[in-house]
Amino acid sequence: MYFKIKKIKIKTGGPLVVYLTKYDCAKLNIPPKSRMGIRFNKKELIAMVDIIDSDFLKNGQVGVLDEVREKLNLKHNDIVRLFHINEPITLNYIKKKLQGERLNKDQFTKIINDIKDNILTEVEITYFVSACYCNPLNLDETIALTKSMVETGKIIKFGSKNVIDKHCIGGVAGNRTTMIVVPILAVAGYVVPKTSSRSITSPAGTADTFEVFTNVDLDISKMKKVVKKTGACITWGGALDLAPADDIIINVEHPLSLDPRGQLIASVLSKKRSVSSNKVLIDIPYGMGSKISSKKDALSLKSDFEKVGHSIGLNVHAVLTDGKNPIGCGLGPVLEAIDVYDVLKNQHDHLKDLIDKSIKLAGNMLELGGLYKKGQGEIVARDILYSNKAFDKFNEIIVAQGGKKINGTNNLKNKLSKCIYEVKSNKSGIVKQIDNKIISKIAKMAGAPSHKGCGVYLLKKQNDKVKKNEILFRVYSYTNIKLNQINNFLKLADPYSFK
Amino acid sequence: MYFKIKKIKIKTGGPLVVYLTKYDCAKLNIPPKSRMGIRFNKKELIAMVDIIDSDFLKNGQVGVLDEVREKLNLKHNDIVRLFHINEPITLNYIKKKLQGERLNKDQFTKIINDIKDNILTEVEITYFVSACYCNPLNLDETIALTKSMVETGKIIKFGSKNVIDKHCIGGVAGNRTTMIVVPILAVAGYVVPKTSSRSITSPAGTADTFEVFTNVDLDISKMKKVVKKTGACITWGGALDLAPADDIIINVEHPLSLDPRGQLIASVLSKKRSVSSNKVLIDIPYGMGSKISSKKDALSLKSDFEKVGHSIGLNVHAVLTDGKNPIGCGLGPVLEAIDVYDVLKNQHDHLKDLIDKSIKLAGNMLELGGLYKKGQGEIVARDILYSNKAFDKFNEIIVAQGGKKINGTNNLKNKLSKCIYEVKSNKSGIVKQIDNKIISKIAKMAGAPSHKGCGVYLLKKQNDKVKKNEILFRVYSYTNIKLNQINNFLKLADPYSFK
Repeated sequence: MYFKIKKIKIKTGGPLVVYLTKYDCAKLNIPPKSRMGIRFNKKELIAMVDIIDSDFLKNGQVGVLDEVREKLNLKHNDIVRLFHINEPITLNYIKKKLQGERLNKDQFTKIINDIKDNILTEVEITYFVSACYCNPLNLDETIALTKSMVETGKIIKFGSKNVIDKHCIGGVAGNRTTMIVVPILAVAGYVVPKTSSRSITSPAGTADTFEVFTNVDLDISKMKKVVKKTGACITWGGALDLAPADDIIINVEHPLSLDPRGQLIASVLSKKRSVSSNKVLIDIPYGMGSKISSKKDALSLKSDFEKVGHSIGLNVHAVLTDGKNPIGCGLGPVLEAIDVYDVLKNQHDHLKDLIDKSIKLAGNMLELGGLYKKGQGEIVARDILYSNKAFDKFNEIIVAQGGKKINGTNNLKNKLSKCIYEVKSNKSGIVKQIDNKIISKIAKMAGAPSHKGCGVYLLKKQNDKVKKNEILFRVYSYTNIKLNQINNFLKLADPYSFK
Repeated sequence: MYFKIKKIKIKTGGPLVVYLTKYDCAKLNIPPKSRMGIRFNKKELIAMVDIIDSDFLKNGQVGVLDEVREKLNLKHNDIVRLFHINEPITLNYIKKKLQGERLNKDQFTKIINDIKDNILTEVEITYFVSACYCNPLNLDETIALTKSMVETGKIIKFGSKNVIDKHCIGGVAGNRTTMIVVPILAVAGYVVPKTSSRSITSPAGTADTFEVFTNVDLDISKMKKVVKKTGACITWGGALDLAPADDIIINVEHPLSLDPRGQLIASVLSKKRSVSSNKVLIDIPYGMGSKISSKKDALSLKSDFEKVGHSIGLNVHAVLTDGKNPIGCGLGPVLEAIDVYDVLKNQHDHLKDLIDKSIKLAGNMLELGGLYKKGQGEIVARDILYSNKAFDKFNEIIVAQGGKKINGTNNLKNKLSKCIYEVKSNKSGIVKQIDNKIISKIAKMAGAPSHKGCGVYLLKKQNDKVKKNEILFRVYSYTNIKLNQINNFLKLADPYSFK
C-alpha cells in the first residue's frame, strides 16, 4: 500500500502517529489505532494509524506529524509504503503480569524497549503500570526492571571516582534538603551531578524550587560543563532524556499519582546509574502522614533499595528519617527557596529541622563516599555550612547554570503572591503534628507549584506553643477566589493537631 | 485567561482536546494534558489542554478541533475564556478500586458519567478497566455498574411486550447462530432488535458476517423502521450509540483483549436493556479451548448474569453449551455467511452442529418469551427453519436493511480470496478436538475479519474419520506471504487432535 506524504506541522512529543482518510482505512481494512509499518528509502518505523476526518487530507495521502517526518526524512509528496505488522509480543507479557504472573529479565527488557521506541501506546503502558501496581514486583522482578532501564538509558561519565548522589522518596512537605546538601558535598571534594524532579503531586519539587534561582533545563553537554566547573549541578532530570522509557511511564502514572514500589526503585536507581554515581543515599521518611506509615515497611523498602542497588553495582545506603511533619517553613517554590537561602546564610532560628536533617544526610554521604571517616561526616558538614562555603558554592552553581548570584531575599520576597490569608488558631496548646497531606493540599490549592510565588508559610511548627488567635500559617494564593475555597476546605480538614 | 479561537478542521472522534502554544502554557502555568474549563456564550465544557508545537498556532490563540467547536458553537476568532478546574473526584474512586476497595452505585455512576462526557482520558479509563480486571467486581458492584450504564444510555422502544434478545459470550470459532435464530423468532411472532458486535479478537463477529449480506451500520431511526417492517434486525451495536460509556471502555479493552467479568455482564445486559428487551437468552459455551474451561465457572457466570438481569428488570436465562470445538465449517465473514445460507436453505449435511445449536437456542427463546409452552420450542423452531420461512424472513431483513435478496451462494463464493492453501493430515484417525484458539488464529493470520473473503474452512470436524493426506481444512489468505507464515505457525501449533 503506497501513500503520498502530506505534512502536518505538529509535534506530539509522544507516540508516532500517522493519519489516513476514513475511506482509505475502510478500503484497506485498517482499523483505527492499529499499528502499521512505514517504509521509505530503506528506513522503517512503526506508527499508530488513526483516521483524520477532514478535507485537509485526500484519499491516497498519509498525514505525518513532525516526529515521523523527521525520523524518516520525509518531504511533501514523497511516496511511502505502509505494511501490516504483527502485534508486539510485549502485549502478551503485560497481560500475563495483569493476571498476576511473574515476568523475567528478557520480558521486562522487551517491554522497556517497546516503551522507549514508542511501539506501545499510552493505553498499553497504562496496563503495564496497573499490572505492576496490582501485582507488585518481587525483588527479582525489580532487579530485572532496573537492569532493563539502565540498559535502555544513557550513561554520562564525569571522569571521577567520587561521584555521589542522593534521592528522597518524598511525601514530606517542604523538605528541601538537596539544595543544602549538594553544595556541602561539592565543597568537601565530591562530584554531585544531581538530577531532580519537578513536582508531581507536591507543592514543589527540587527542580521547581531551584528554578526560582536559575535555569534547571540543562542538556547533557551543559550539565557536564557545570559539573566540571563547580563539582556539582542541580538540574531537572526530565530535560536530560536519561531514561526515556521511565519518563514515559511517569507521565502515565501522573493522573492517579501512582508509584508502584518496583517501578519507584527501578526509576530512581536507573537514573542514578545513568549519571555514573556509584554511591547513593536514599532518604526514606516514614511515619503517620508520610508515604510510608510503618517502620516495618520503611525497613523493607530500605532493604529492597540496597539489594537492587547492589545488583547493578551501586553502593546504596538508605536512611530512615522522621516523616510525620513538614520540614522547613515554606511550601511552594519561592517560599522553599527562601528557606534554603536562610539555611545557607545561617539566618535560621526557625529552620532547625531543615538544618538538622540536611546535616544528617550530608554527614552520611560524606562518610558513604569514603573520603571521610565514620563519625566525622556531620562535623565536616556543619563546618562547611557554618563557614559560608556552602553558600558560596550554591551561588557558583546558580551562576554556572545561567542564573544571577543571590545576595539577600528581597528579590525572592518580591516574587511572592500578594493575595495573603492568615490562618489563626482557634485554641491554645502545643502543636503535636502538622498533617503533610492536608497542608500540601492547601499549598496546591493556593496555586503551587505552577504559580511559583504561591503556597503556605508555617509560623507554628511541631512542639511550638500556640495561643488562641495566634497565626498558625500564611497562605499565598494567586486569586481571592482560591482563598475562599481554601477557607471552606479548612472547615473540613484541619492540618494542625495539638497535644 | 482569554484566547482567540483558531479552527483545526480535524475530528478525533474521542476526547475533547484544545491546543495552546508552548509559550502560553508556560506563561500561564498550564501543564500539558491538564484539564481546563472553556466558556463561551454561557456554555461551558471541560477539555484536555495540550501543547501544539507549530507555527500554525500563535500565542494568544487556542486551537480547537471539530468536536469542541461544534459543542460550543465557535467561530474563527471568537474569544473564549479558559479556567482552571478541580480534578475529577472519580480519579479517587478509580485509585481506590485499583487498591482493591469496593465501589458503590453512586461512585460507579459518577465514573460512567465522566467516561461518557469525555472528562476522563483514555489513560484514566484504562486504570478503571485494569482495576476491575485485577480486583474483580462482586455481585453488588456488577449490579451497580450495570445500573449506571443503563442510566447513562439510551432506551429504544418498539411498542411490543414480546421483545426478545440473545447474546453469546464468545470464544467458539464459527458459531454464527444469531443469523439463524433471529429470523426463526421473528417468524414465530417475536420482536428481535438484535444488536451485534464486530470482531474484537475472533475471525469475525456477527456484524462482520451479516455485513457480507447487507448494511449493518443502522442509526436508531433506521433500526426502528426495519424492526417495524420485519419484526427484527441484525445491526452493529456500535453505530447506535446505545451505551456510549461502554463503547469507550471497549475501545480501551481492545489492545489486550480484556473483558473483566463484571464489565462483560454490565456491557451485555445494559445494551439489551437499552433496546427494551425484557427477556434475554445468554449462550455460555464452556469447556477446554473456550473462554470458560470449567463447568463450575460457567455455572457461576450463569448465576451472575441471571441475578444482575433480575436487578434491572430483565428476565435473563443463561444456557450452558459445548464450547470445546468450532461450530459450523467457516471461519471468517464470507465463509461464515456461506454456512448461514446453507443452514437457512437446508443444504447442510455438514452443518449439523450449527443447526442443532441454533434450534436449541431458538427453542429455548421461544419458550422463554412466553408465547410457546415448555417442550414446544424446539419443534416450532425446526418447523420454521425447514419450511423455508426463516430463509424468507432472513431475506426480508436483508432487503429492509438496504441489501439485495440472496438466492444461491455464487455471489458469496466470488468474494472468497483466491490465495488458497489446503492443510492435509499427516496421520489417520478420528478427530477428537479442533482447538478454537489455534484455528481462529490461523483464520486471523489469513486476513479475517478485515479481509472479508479470508479465513478457514473446515473439511474435517469433531468425530470425523480422517485418512493420512486427506484435507483437514482450507485457508483463504489475502497474500501468499501470509500463507508461508501460516505454514510456519502450523509447525508450532496443531489445531487438530485425534482420538
